[in-house]
Amino acid sequence: MAPRDPKDGGGRGGGSGGGAADPEDDIEAPLLASSGSSFFFDPACEDGGEEQRRRRRRFLHGSHTLSNTTSQVALVGADVCPIESLDYELVENDVFKQDWRARGRGHILRYVALKWALCFLVGALVAAAGFVANIGVENVAGSKFVVTSNLMLEGKHRSAFAVFLASNFVLTMLAAVLTVYVAPAAAGSGIPEVKAYLNGVDAPNIFSLKTLVVKIVGCIAAVSSSLHVGKAGPLVHTGACIASILGQGGSSKYGMTCKWLRYFKNDRDRRDLVTCGSAAGIAAAFRAPVGGVLFALETVSSWWRSALLWRAFFTTAMVAVVLRALIDFCKSGKCGLFGKGGLIMFDVTADYVTYHLVDLPPVITLGVFGGILGSLYNFFLDKVLRLYNLINEKGKTYKLVLAATVTVCTSCCLFGLPWIAACKPCPSDTEEACPSIGRSGNFKKFQCGMNEYNDLASLFFNTNDDTIRNLYSAGTDDEFHISSILVFFAASYFLGIFSYGLALPSGLFVPVILTGAAYGRLVGMLVGSQSTLDHGLFAVLGSAALLGGSMRMTVSVCVILLELTNNLLMLPLVMLVLLISKVVADAFNANVYDLLVRLKGFPHLEGYAEPYMRQLSVSDVVTGPLQTFNGIEKVGHIVHVLKTTGHNGFPVVDEPPFSDCPTLYGLILRDHLLVLLRKKDFIHNCTASTLNASKHFTNDEFAKRGSGKQDRIEDIELSAEELEMFVDLHPFTNTSPYTVLETMSLAKALILFREVGLRHLLVLPKSSKRAPVVGILTRHDFMPEHILGLHPFLFKSRWKKVRLGKLKMTSIL
Amino acid sequence: MAPRDPKDGGGRGGGSGGGAADPEDDIEAPLLASSGSSFFFDPACEDGGEEQRRRRRRFLHGSHTLSNTTSQVALVGADVCPIESLDYELVENDVFKQDWRARGRGHILRYVALKWALCFLVGALVAAAGFVANIGVENVAGSKFVVTSNLMLEGKHRSAFAVFLASNFVLTMLAAVLTVYVAPAAAGSGIPEVKAYLNGVDAPNIFSLKTLVVKIVGCIAAVSSSLHVGKAGPLVHTGACIASILGQGGSSKYGMTCKWLRYFKNDRDRRDLVTCGSAAGIAAAFRAPVGGVLFALETVSSWWRSALLWRAFFTTAMVAVVLRALIDFCKSGKCGLFGKGGLIMFDVTADYVTYHLVDLPPVITLGVFGGILGSLYNFFLDKVLRLYNLINEKGKTYKLVLAATVTVCTSCCLFGLPWIAACKPCPSDTEEACPSIGRSGNFKKFQCGMNEYNDLASLFFNTNDDTIRNLYSAGTDDEFHISSILVFFAASYFLGIFSYGLALPSGLFVPVILTGAAYGRLVGMLVGSQSTLDHGLFAVLGSAALLGGSMRMTVSVCVILLELTNNLLMLPLVMLVLLISKVVADAFNANVYDLLVRLKGFPHLEGYAEPYMRQLSVSDVVTGPLQTFNGIEKVGHIVHVLKTTGHNGFPVVDEPPFSDCPTLYGLILRDHLLVLLRKKDFIHNCTASTLNASKHFTNDEFAKRGSGKQDRIEDIELSAEELEMFVDLHPFTNTSPYTVLETMSLAKALILFREVGLRHLLVLPKSSKRAPVVGILTRHDFMPEHILGLHPFLFKSRWKKVRLGKLKMTSIL
Repeated sequence: MAPRDPKDGGGRGGGSGGGAADPEDDIEAPLLASSGSSFFFDPACEDGGEEQRRRRRRFLHGSHTLSNTTSQVALVGADVCPIESLDYELVENDVFKQDWRARGRGHILRYVALKWALCFLVGALVAAAGFVANIGVENVAGSKFVVTSNLMLEGKHRSAFAVFLASNFVLTMLAAVLTVYVAPAAAGSGIPEVKAYLNGVDAPNIFSLKTLVVKIVGCIAAVSSSLHVGKAGPLVHTGACIASILGQGGSSKYGMTCKWLRYFKNDRDRRDLVTCGSAAGIAAAFRAPVGGVLFALETVSSWWRSALLWRAFFTTAMVAVVLRALIDFCKSGKCGLFGKGGLIMFDVTADYVTYHLVDLPPVITLGVFGGILGSLYNFFLDKVLRLYNLINEKGKTYKLVLAATVTVCTSCCLFGLPWIAACKPCPSDTEEACPSIGRSGNFKKFQCGMNEYNDLASLFFNTNDDTIRNLYSAGTDDEFHISSILVFFAASYFLGIFSYGLALPSGLFVPVILTGAAYGRLVGMLVGSQSTLDHGLFAVLGSAALLGGSMRMTVSVCVILLELTNNLLMLPLVMLVLLISKVVADAFNANVYDLLVRLKGFPHLEGYAEPYMRQLSVSDVVTGPLQTFNGIEKVGHIVHVLKTTGHNGFPVVDEPPFSDCPTLYGLILRDHLLVLLRKKDFIHNCTASTLNASKHFTNDEFAKRGSGKQDRIEDIELSAEELEMFVDLHPFTNTSPYTVLETMSLAKALILFREVGLRHLLVLPKSSKRAPVVGILTRHDFMPEHILGLHPFLFKSRWKKVRLGKLKMTSIL
Repeated sequence: MAPRDPKDGGGRGGGSGGGAADPEDDIEAPLLASSGSSFFFDPACEDGGEEQRRRRRRFLHGSHTLSNTTSQVALVGADVCPIESLDYELVENDVFKQDWRARGRGHILRYVALKWALCFLVGALVAAAGFVANIGVENVAGSKFVVTSNLMLEGKHRSAFAVFLASNFVLTMLAAVLTVYVAPAAAGSGIPEVKAYLNGVDAPNIFSLKTLVVKIVGCIAAVSSSLHVGKAGPLVHTGACIASILGQGGSSKYGMTCKWLRYFKNDRDRRDLVTCGSAAGIAAAFRAPVGGVLFALETVSSWWRSALLWRAFFTTAMVAVVLRALIDFCKSGKCGLFGKGGLIMFDVTADYVTYHLVDLPPVITLGVFGGILGSLYNFFLDKVLRLYNLINEKGKTYKLVLAATVTVCTSCCLFGLPWIAACKPCPSDTEEACPSIGRSGNFKKFQCGMNEYNDLASLFFNTNDDTIRNLYSAGTDDEFHISSILVFFAASYFLGIFSYGLALPSGLFVPVILTGAAYGRLVGMLVGSQSTLDHGLFAVLGSAALLGGSMRMTVSVCVILLELTNNLLMLPLVMLVLLISKVVADAFNANVYDLLVRLKGFPHLEGYAEPYMRQLSVSDVVTGPLQTFNGIEKVGHIVHVLKTTGHNGFPVVDEPPFSDCPTLYGLILRDHLLVLLRKKDFIHNCTASTLNASKHFTNDEFAKRGSGKQDRIEDIELSAEELEMFVDLHPFTNTSPYTVLETMSLAKALILFREVGLRHLLVLPKSSKRAPVVGILTRHDFMPEHILGLHPFLFKSRWKKVRLGKLKMTSIL
């Protein structure tokens, strides 16, 4: 093998993967790789140059070119950031195998023990985080409501409004400023980001310590500010953050690392831990341990194993135990204004729920319209988010102005709407004080006289948790007037839609539950005497219907609702409503998380193949020039290739005289090449045998450090002499890469790629006369946008039809 | 290409997969294939020749030779039968693609609608089956107990014993005779068989109509006969049977087919349906819809998708709804002796369960000893089953004698042991009649005087469901004496172990719950005033501990227990106990289902790779001569190969002059070759182009018919002239087989094989100078026995250590 000129563009391994050789068309080329600088670690990734802004605009407006660049950036939180694939595959090279053979029982035991210890820690910390979030909301919002209610009781309506508006404004701006200036990744619910991460897409800062802190503080501020947002989604993100930070041994940026914890060397272990963390988040939000596990299984995770089920269960059990201990601690009154609504657990007090055939028609109606309302919710949310994205991308000030506008409108709504409700006389047989005094209660006085209450104010002037409790409570059929419930439902529906896309931590779950509860009560009232069911039960079923219609989760929502209401007897009804509303809603659009993931531009790998993929073979989608390395490669050439491309995996091919004919030896990762270059363990002659090269390395040196962490070739300095030397890649090459023949259908290649959890899939030639490898498939090559770009005429019409159909069909299939 | 002599042994495609060419060593050769007759459809598959008996003996005694025959037979129900792998892979040949392109929206809609309709049907039918089983047990066992109790009340102890013994004997023999002579596959719980099926192993008759009927009838008889067996396991098998029969469009053997239903053409759709069926089984057994889904997910299924979660949930919701309707129907007294225990739902009446830190030590102790007892249970069960297998293999009479012996012993135990208990005076404050009259009740009089009751008889002389209810009921701390509970626990523990392996339908779940309840009460009594918990609650926790210790399920057991007892507040305690007992038990042995699957010899593919697999490459385990076909092959050669080997998949290789060099075209299945031969669409010249051959076939002709159904080459008659003709295999060859390079590590190949759900995995050569395919991997090549056989010296010591360690470690990993 003759040494090559470092300026040589690099050998193209095979001819099959022809197509447009646009430099942007490289497989997994990070954005702007051609300019020689990766902005992956640019702390303010939204402040790129004009090129990036143009690209972001193109991304946001959905106008894609034919090249495969569409999915190289995504909307992480509030900002557009570059994304990276995760490596789940075990790199079986000589170094790994040495390490593997050397592992004793002690090593395995320590590994297992650490896994469990980390799950324990994640559970305890997420429970603590959930508790802090609850305490914070209860106290901040509680103080606000106490002051406002007292002013209202005194008849000082204007100062009450001023206090209400001002406190809401300050709290919202606190959340928004923190999010915009400190951690943009903390915006939104975070569930789409966690879902994308668990599908194999990493982005900078999604799980950083900064994001974690802003998420918790911002969530408390946002929820306390009476914005129509929940804390369940942020808690899922919080759980994932805690798990990820623990899994990579702490936050190296702030020097808060624990060497003992830095034991997880690969993305796969971290993925498992993040799955447990997200399960813990839901468990902490709703005190629903089983529901949390099912939520992680059904909605968030892409890969699931039986062992994971158990660990996730352990984590959520820890959450339940720790939460219970903390609540017991609070019962003695040490937590300030910690009301009953603190950690949601509604006791629907109807002891024995009975229902008969006559109740079926109203319940089915509830499910059908719940499905329609849910899919409309998703539709409006999609439109509003697209609008918000256009506003948000104009700059930080716009984000703040948008948040300010929404919070002012919300406050006006909440304070203004109760005035239209008529005052109702206090019921005589209630045990509660009427009108309510202090922060919560079913009977808010508002503007009414003595012994009267404003039922709409009881709904608007409470924290979300207390309002849900009011709506769920049994035996309160006469407490609310139908017009009040109708107004509350409409306001809640649209406030929820307009509050989600702001640049602050905000969850969708609780607003949907709340809106659904109002919807259920409304149906219950309209049905009237046609049904024997309590309106509180209707409220629970309404929540199920709207959750089924927008989130489209079934088992997890069902279990969460059961755990929330502690009443198993309504299980069949809840199931029925969920199934009906999901089926109805699926006829219109996709579930809200899929919509968000798509809107944010994450290259999410689905678990099924699109119909048109069966018509294509993998050679139809392989693009770009293939960069391969020789088994013993010149350092200069490696540096040149790493600098000029953004590829993350390179096939290693042994060519004569090292083998009889060109033979595929394996695949080497960019990260591992960088480690080699950094260590400078080079040889002078390309024919020298360096069998012991691997002895100079330990497997730990090749360990991946964590989410959003990567070396850069620019940081490695090499002398001219070193550039002329050689390096033996054999001991560091993964000798067991997964491969497919070029004639393999794309659908089956996708199944392999997705089920095994790959980052690179090598494409082998059919005929032995060609180069031993003709291309690499990555996640981006399976994206519909890319495939459509390469085959616009063949599939455009069919694809669109299929694509539209897919949204409706695949979730049923 | 020169025409070959039909007697030619067939070309060996490559040299790599050398090794012993023992005819038994063929890849996936069904047993006795060399004798020219497959006994796959032999209705009495236990009546093979001497060879088979020898083989069975070798199998049962666990002495394996080095060839890969160990896993070609398995213990299905009570008999050793040959097994087959299932085809989950989509065969993407020209015929399929034509069919795929022709599919319109209507086709897809019909397909989706049918899937849901089938789930609905499965749910309704399984609910009906569960209801019938319950009604049957309640009435048969109820009548028996009424007669016996009345005789005891009258003081006629001897005739009571005679009636008890005789009725138990008759019932047991009915179950055993039905099982042994009509459907041996119905023996046992059936869960290991369902688990194996869902892992990809098929066996004749496991889901036949005969098996279904015998399972239900036998289960009623066996449970009614006071044998210590449950009906949960049989109901899972029943559910799977119903699903499988519906999925293949009815039972063709009895002419009960429905053309409209015969729409599922592949094993994958049937697998999904069977998963839903098994979930429905548990849902029907315990009225636990969510628990059923989780049971299927955690214990039974090997592949799971999010869409499946939803369909399984729909199925179990149907079960819940139908069951509720049927129970409402029975409430009016139309179902005979249908007591409260009928469909298990225990209302643990303690309204608000409170527990404190002081309760933790006893609960943890309960978990620890529950784990030990559970693993001991598995250990004893394993030993007893091995002993029973030795007895059972001697013949049908031995099976009946064994069943008779056990039922007589059980009856003596149940009748004899209560005599050692002291009579207790009736409590004055109870609402129940004391002594109890009729079939159930907490206060059985037995031999005691008036106003006295025998607490041990109250436990022994009830159906399992009623006994569990007695033990679970709150506020009954003083009803039982500690010695009675101790005796009952010990008897229950060992009766459960000795009853399971008999040749009749028998479940493990309920006996373990029952034993655990006694164990929990025992601990509660021993702890005494150290804990504030009710003994009924201790019983629930004891059940959880023993279930966790023997079944090792966590989430599903937790949810099932919660749904059984309708009390969510004890969730944290149940979780804690389950986790502790599972961890403790995992330190000793594997879970009971894994033990059974291994004992029965099913080649179960685990979802993880054994450590030693990382040290091997796939070329180290490929065995046997490889049979390949040319793209245009002589009919005679195909017939010869099909007759002389038992392979189910053959690589198709295009050789010059049809291509430049030998090129792998794809893989063709035995089933498809048989369809081709049967249709006789042959050509005269091997060079003729027959591009339109696929036009003569529709995809439906290649559809797989269902579990346990396969064509035989012997049934196809071909003339000498036809044998000399050729057939073009190209349109029928799967052009997208999954492939690995021969240097791929075995561990990664296993992950691919298992995650994607393959039956055949082609091994490609590393060097292009070799034949285009060098071997085929099947399920059996990944079995530890096979690998150990091929590499006895290299891995024996390490493997044994690892293997032992595995049992303890992998389930934790």
